[in-house]
Amino acid sequence: MTLLDENRLFDAEPKARGLAQALYAGIKDLPLVSPHGHTEPRWYAENEKFPDPAQLLIVPDHYVFRMLFSQGIRLEDLGVPTADGSAVETDGRTIWRLFAKNYYLFRGTPTRSWLDHTFATLFGVTERLSETNADAVYDQIAERLGRDDYRPRALFERFNLEVISTTDAALDDLKWHRMIKGSGWKGRVIPAYRPDSVVDPDFAGFAANLDKLGEITGEDTGHWNGYLEAHRKRRAYFKQFGATSSDHGHPTAETANLLPKEAGQLYDKVRTGKAEPRERALFRAQMLTEMARMSIDDGLVLQIHPGAWRNHSPAMLSKFGRDKGFDIPSRTDYVGALKPLLDAVGTDPRLSIILFTLDESVYARELAPLAGVYPSLKLGPPWWFHDSPEGMRRFREMATETAGFYNTVGFNDDTRAFPSIPARHDVARRVDCAFLARLVTEHRLDEDEAHEVAKDLAYNLVRKAYKL
Amino acid sequence: MTLLDENRLFDAEPKARGLAQALYAGIKDLPLVSPHGHTEPRWYAENEKFPDPAQLLIVPDHYVFRMLFSQGIRLEDLGVPTADGSAVETDGRTIWRLFAKNYYLFRGTPTRSWLDHTFATLFGVTERLSETNADAVYDQIAERLGRDDYRPRALFERFNLEVISTTDAALDDLKWHRMIKGSGWKGRVIPAYRPDSVVDPDFAGFAANLDKLGEITGEDTGHWNGYLEAHRKRRAYFKQFGATSSDHGHPTAETANLLPKEAGQLYDKVRTGKAEPRERALFRAQMLTEMARMSIDDGLVLQIHPGAWRNHSPAMLSKFGRDKGFDIPSRTDYVGALKPLLDAVGTDPRLSIILFTLDESVYARELAPLAGVYPSLKLGPPWWFHDSPEGMRRFREMATETAGFYNTVGFNDDTRAFPSIPARHDVARRVDCAFLARLVTEHRLDEDEAHEVAKDLAYNLVRKAYKL
Amino acid sequence: MTLLDENRLFDAEPKARGLAQALYAGIKDLPLVSPHGHTEPRWYAENEKFPDPAQLLIVPDHYVFRMLFSQGIRLEDLGVPTADGSAVETDGRTIWRLFAKNYYLFRGTPTRSWLDHTFATLFGVTERLSETNADAVYDQIAERLGRDDYRPRALFERFNLEVISTTDAALDDLKWHRMIKGSGWKGRVIPAYRPDSVVDPDFAGFAANLDKLGEITGEDTGHWNGYLEAHRKRRAYFKQFGATSSDHGHPTAETANLLPKEAGQLYDKVRTGKAEPRERALFRAQMLTEMARMSIDDGLVLQIHPGAWRNHSPAMLSKFGRDKGFDIPSRTDYVGALKPLLDAVGTDPRLSIILFTLDESVYARELAPLAGVYPSLKLGPPWWFHDSPEGMRRFREMATETAGFYNTVGFNDDTRAFPSIPARHDVARRVDCAFLARLVTEHRLDEDEAHEVAKDLAYNLVRKAYKL
Repeated sequence: MTLLDENRLFDAEPKARGLAQALYAGIKDLPLVSPHGHTEPRWYAENEKFPDPAQLLIVPDHYVFRMLFSQGIRLEDLGVPTADGSAVETDGRTIWRLFAKNYYLFRGTPTRSWLDHTFATLFGVTERLSETNADAVYDQIAERLGRDDYRPRALFERFNLEVISTTDAALDDLKWHRMIKGSGWKGRVIPAYRPDSVVDPDFAGFAANLDKLGEITGEDTGHWNGYLEAHRKRRAYFKQFGATSSDHGHPTAETANLLPKEAGQLYDKVRTGKAEPRERALFRAQMLTEMARMSIDDGLVLQIHPGAWRNHSPAMLSKFGRDKGFDIPSRTDYVGALKPLLDAVGTDPRLSIILFTLDESVYARELAPLAGVYPSLKLGPPWWFHDSPEGMRRFREMATETAGFYNTVGFNDDTRAFPSIPARHDVARRVDCAFLARLVTEHRLDEDEAHEVAKDLAYNLVRKAYKL
Repeated sequence: MTLLDENRLFDAEPKARGLAQALYAGIKDLPLVSPHGHTEPRWYAENEKFPDPAQLLIVPDHYVFRMLFSQGIRLEDLGVPTADGSAVETDGRTIWRLFAKNYYLFRGTPTRSWLDHTFATLFGVTERLSETNADAVYDQIAERLGRDDYRPRALFERFNLEVISTTDAALDDLKWHRMIKGSGWKGRVIPAYRPDSVVDPDFAGFAANLDKLGEITGEDTGHWNGYLEAHRKRRAYFKQFGATSSDHGHPTAETANLLPKEAGQLYDKVRTGKAEPRERALFRAQMLTEMARMSIDDGLVLQIHPGAWRNHSPAMLSKFGRDKGFDIPSRTDYVGALKPLLDAVGTDPRLSIILFTLDESVYARELAPLAGVYPSLKLGPPWWFHDSPEGMRRFREMATETAGFYNTVGFNDDTRAFPSIPARHDVARRVDCAFLARLVTEHRLDEDEAHEVAKDLAYNLVRKAYKL
Repeated sequence: MTLLDENRLFDAEPKARGLAQALYAGIKDLPLVSPHGHTEPRWYAENEKFPDPAQLLIVPDHYVFRMLFSQGIRLEDLGVPTADGSAVETDGRTIWRLFAKNYYLFRGTPTRSWLDHTFATLFGVTERLSETNADAVYDQIAERLGRDDYRPRALFERFNLEVISTTDAALDDLKWHRMIKGSGWKGRVIPAYRPDSVVDPDFAGFAANLDKLGEITGEDTGHWNGYLEAHRKRRAYFKQFGATSSDHGHPTAETANLLPKEAGQLYDKVRTGKAEPRERALFRAQMLTEMARMSIDDGLVLQIHPGAWRNHSPAMLSKFGRDKGFDIPSRTDYVGALKPLLDAVGTDPRLSIILFTLDESVYARELAPLAGVYPSLKLGPPWWFHDSPEGMRRFREMATETAGFYNTVGFNDDTRAFPSIPARHDVARRVDCAFLARLVTEHRLDEDEAHEVAKDLAYNLVRKAYKL
């Protein structure tokens, strides 16, 4: 028994499979370009060994523990730290056994395929994880994690990563990025500008954050113009470390285009905590348009990741904190929401906005028609819950006919699960090859074109779209 | 020509088909578990012969007559009784001929496949129904219906039903269920608690129903606490007859979690007919949360079937009454709607809620993410308009990657068309086997696992989820 | 290398492909029936030669230039005329070269397949268009366009068009249609009644249009009853030229059913420009119901094309005018929106309404359930962005199980790109045959039935639904 079949994710029909194989052969060894994700720059800076298998693969991965929690397993028993510091399981092997016993719950999920891929290619595991072999697999992974060639930089190189972007708070001093740069190591790790803490009035400590933004930049953030200038300076600072993009994760895709005077007055209200919820949302909306304007000037690509209802369960938030699997997608409008921004700057070919969604019903109805005409808009790959074989297939089926391939931007792994990065890119490459193979067998695309498109989807488009 | 091909609903590609056959062979003879449906307990209690073919298969089946009506055939001509008692066709053979002549309208629909399955396996019909053979088929079915081994209990046994749940009004005395229990017959027929008439202020006779609820239970339903206690007693009464679930068919999935004092005041308003529409909706919403609390105590599984716009045509409602094919799905929100209930009790692993939908756009966006983290939530199978091969396929494709298989609950036939029950389960089993076969041929699941999952989907999950 | 494979759009699996081939062979030569579209009656009336390749195939086709614009190519460089008359490229060959160089952008889109089909079958092109062969292809097409057998009437006959409907403003004098009729040519070209300019209070010149409507018809459009009577007369006038349908492209599917007195008062308000936005929308809604009532009397089939957010970019509208690729779909409700109309006349079997959508999420949830019960409702084919292989496949997969095939109306090409008409019908026929072939290989439909349905979808249903 082998954990990974060489034809996984390819159609069983022999002609389609043969074509998918040929297409995949042409791209499987291309370097990985990771333009958006959440790995820690500290890892590459310090280059410390990763901790035990459970701390690496289970405890920090919300895909993993949310599924187990949904089946009645306590997060404490999975080692997920509590906000109040109350006790949780700390023994890696104990956590691992609980996980292994319940590994069947992941059947049919991408998590299962990412883990199998990681087990097989990174740790040399040859058998499907189960209660029976839990200890043996744990030992094997633990042994590898103890080796120098499993340190972060070694993995970066082993993964054939050409470049990876982290996601960094606007107020971050980027010290780990500085340390990487100064280290002499050749791995390309760049930051991305994520200004939630200073553009979202609902963010904890918003007012204090604005003060800090002023201090760092030497701008007077007590006024709208100084505030905008402070953003410009931070963006320039991020660019010094190689940043090519900003990232914005608002609850909706709402944008606004207020007159400068109105925007200034609104800023005064949110800054002093006097704004109503509607005004706070309006401020976030206005800031997307401001960021777009700055993008035109400084060239940072603007990513919008809207539509997650964060921390849906207040009880879980207070007990375990953020990012614990309780972020739920919600219906997201783009056509009306983006209009103010698009009216302002949407036909400027210097602007580049990459749109993501957690609401697949918009692919064919909204996103493809918008990206299929506005030169500033491109479509990000299927995101989060939709970063999966079926999700990717639906994306291509629903977006391609209106937006084409060339208004999409290749793959994002978008993960903090560092070991899973090759697996995730591999899934995307295979699904795209399978999709292209279907187009060829149905005579909707010529074979030579399919080879070209496969390469574009795996490598060229992401570099172009993210200016990497 | 044979009416049923043994490979129906399996992919034509030989490897996938071979696998589907093997998976299906392992489960096709498993008993049917029918945890939710609308057959009449009276049938099993009295065990009378079913009437003529038209009265059995056409007149009561809204799937059948709605399609014919959509093509301009009058419901009167199909024997559908009028509310005002005006004349309708009563001759079974005349109705049958009209139906047979128009049987082609059902091409590509599940109704066609259920009927063909019923014709072939239950009545020994070997030819496709048409105008030409209408009389012969009618005679053949009529002859069988006259036999003792076609009485309800005999069919129950022939269908290999392990258990069937009916759906019963809160005020029902369950006399048919008592009669079944007292009859010595071994068939397991259980009720489900459906309290619409006493939780929905818009229900005809709501105030009188509350009075009756008080009488039956000996509780003072003139007050909130007595009203809740009356529900508890009725639920306990239903449990005596084997009930393991309650069922709730609100227009939306809205829930609320008012303070007891607020809830009591709201109850007084709805009870006395003084509530505004918004308040009546809020009361329904509050009652879902109350029912969830009671579920934690008494263990009844809570089913929510939201999103049908009932009786869309007032003219048809007044002429023919309820359930005449004029219930239309509507867009349904879950993420915000369920939050009050989930905030109150959603992470309690003792609670079990099964969610249904008529809005497929929520599978990947809302339902799978919710069920994939909240231990109280499971996903019911594709419902009503989506209880069909394509509907089931979409459900698996859209829900599995985030919720897995183990947050789903197997199949519900949800029908009052008793003869169609084996057909419906067979479709579900075949479609699931075909889906699993695809996962295996694409190397996304191992073959031994697929066999296990097939058995879980056909038999184990429903028994576990419904505590049967 | 050949531009068109004879098996395009058929499944690669040999059994399914063989069946699709057989089904297609039975229908491929059936005449084209084009019940709704936007070709110019003037073309058939004057029968002038078409201009150069770029002016025929690129400059007027928003599918083509919107994709190029989305990739940063200026509309001016594609020869798209400006509203202010500022200069644009006029040299056909220069435009063509720019297009040819970027032809790869259309990979995977229906535009690509329509163009390839047109190039191959109409102009004898044998190689895929590219920068290299741009001039040669241009010359070849230009040469053909210079021939008499490429004039509009000759193409009409070559395309095997049985009938084509244009779409004509209510105030149009139909002079081209008169000229066609008077010419002795046998081609059947009919108008359709599109009254936007006199039912939409937001239409430019609405008040003046109402005056003109009065003049033309001799009715007093200063009052509600005269206004309605004027519509009746115009509809009768259109019928004289063969019209069998009206067409309505409102922003939403909203309908209303006001009392005559209320409607009259509302009319006075919109007529005199005193209506609020909500009232203007209400007037449009009311007019759909009025048109339905007239349909019952005069038999014109009522088409509703809702849900396009027209001219999403005001800057592009002011620079280039309407229909420049900036119409974006939006979420569209039908269940509530159509209720007033349906309550008024929806169960009248004399009424025939054909519903279209740009929001695919409604196929299974709203449109199929509505059309599957209301005798007045039929489903139009996938429209605009969804007029594509994947779009058509999804339509059949999502609508058929509830609405069947016989509540659908065959294909609409809905285009002003005259040369693409055969390509568009061919795609629809092939996709339907592939879908039917899948049903047969999965034993969900008998082969003899599939042949019958294929013919119905390609030819019979459209003639019946549109009374052609």
